Amino acid sequence: MPLTLTPLPKIPLINPGDDLTEILLNSLQAAHLTLDDGDVLVLAQKIVSKAEGRQVNLNTVKPSKEAVELATRIEKDPRLVELILRESREILRVRPGTIIVEHRLGFICANAGVDHSNVQGNDGNPEDWVLLLPANPDRSALEIRKKIKFSTGNRVGVLIIDSHGRPWRLGTIGMTIGFSGLPGLVDRRGWKDLFGYELKITVIAAADELAAAASLVMGEAAERIPAVHVRGFPYPLREGSLKELLRPKSQDLFR
Amino acid sequence: MPLTLTPLPKIPLINPGDDLTEILLNSLQAAHLTLDDGDVLVLAQKIVSKAEGRQVNLNTVKPSKEAVELATRIEKDPRLVELILRESREILRVRPGTIIVEHRLGFICANAGVDHSNVQGNDGNPEDWVLLLPANPDRSALEIRKKIKFSTGNRVGVLIIDSHGRPWRLGTIGMTIGFSGLPGLVDRRGWKDLFGYELKITVIAAADELAAAASLVMGEAAERIPAVHVRGFPYPLREGSLKELLRPKSQDLFR
Repeated sequence: MPLTLTPLPKIPLINPGDDLTEILLNSLQAAHLTLDDGDVLVLAQKIVSKAEGRQVNLNTVKPSKEAVELATRIEKDPRLVELILRESREILRVRPGTIIVEHRLGFICANAGVDHSNVQGNDGNPEDWVLLLPANPDRSALEIRKKIKFSTGNRVGVLIIDSHGRPWRLGTIGMTIGFSGLPGLVDRRGWKDLFGYELKITVIAAADELAAAASLVMGEAAERIPAVHVRGFPYPLREGSLKELLRPKSQDLFR
Repeated sequence: MPLTLTPLPKIPLINPGDDLTEILLNSLQAAHLTLDDGDVLVLAQKIVSKAEGRQVNLNTVKPSKEAVELATRIEKDPRLVELILRESREILRVRPGTIIVEHRLGFICANAGVDHSNVQGNDGNPEDWVLLLPANPDRSALEIRKKIKFSTGNRVGVLIIDSHGRPWRLGTIGMTIGFSGLPGLVDRRGWKDLFGYELKITVIAAADELAAAASLVMGEAAERIPAVHVRGFPYPLREGSLKELLRPKSQDLFR
């Protein structure tokens, strides 16, 4: 069966308190897309964060001494640096404009995923507003998944993604920040290959592969295409969580 | 337009000297899949390497002193370590069983991509044989692309992928090791977002996103599904090369 990723059309700009599930189901209907058991919906982090009211007005943020010092060093708004530090467990590296951190959610990313673009607050001046990642993306995904089950009866997976840079390689790719109802890793250790030889590299980050695939469909305009319908995900759905995908610090050679 | 990734059926086991393009075109025909301008074919590294005769019998490899020392330290076959060192520019990290290197092709990967599984040589004992990556995957992709253009008249992209582990995260994802006729990076710096605010994270590793997507379709059985047909790649095709995707060492905070 082919893997088919279809952009959801006509997702409006999302505001705090919006019912994302209802918006997604309306969009599916408008596109004449059905949901089947085994389908996955992939959501750009921004629409989840916006619906959950994770906008912050920088004018309300009082930077700590640490934030001011770091901000001076890397030429960044100290209020933004303050938010990045609050959202992080640990700083890994800094360079002008960028702080690479372990986010409080456990993954490594630039600037704790705090985003300045496409955020509109109440006062209408977009430059004052930034957006934090969802408080708990696994839980956000679970809630949407449950609502979809309640509304349609379908057992689907829900994956929430963001764009991450990588060490060693240029450009960003879509990466999982939370999910529910699909496998993060698919473990095939112990399987034999075609000649009876035991497979070696056999733990596949299936959720991250899907995150990259959906990000490709969202393209550079993830604001206009913030949700993707996936048919043909090749693994059985099951419970899952972001923790599966995070390499324990003690096993990490590159921190 | 949806992004559709379809596994190519009935790809036989590949032997040195096989005409991969002919095999791919036959498979497309058997599956009633057409090629259109703008389509991309994604190939698992193994079938390209095998067709190019990159199999090596370990019994023919005489390990250097350096290889023997390293092999003892990490409990690995010294002949395999010798091949890994020959295929590498630099060792980044070592741990039992694994050497993280800068491959001679410029990317960072485990064990220089030298693979022990699913390699069958002439003498019939699979444990003696390993497979190196293609000598020049960009060139391999270009040759296949040219042959397809000659046979069908279609302008398609060709992407060659392997499974790579990541720092910070568990599990492997499909990653680009060479390509021709599609963009590696898509650069949108300077574009304005919905509110006129300048986009910040705007260089998308489109080829790597497609590599991950195709890897998802190949699944754990990349031997049985080593090629994927892609319709709906969202960016215009152009010339491209692996070099686009490689972060210069001087700009890399994690080496």
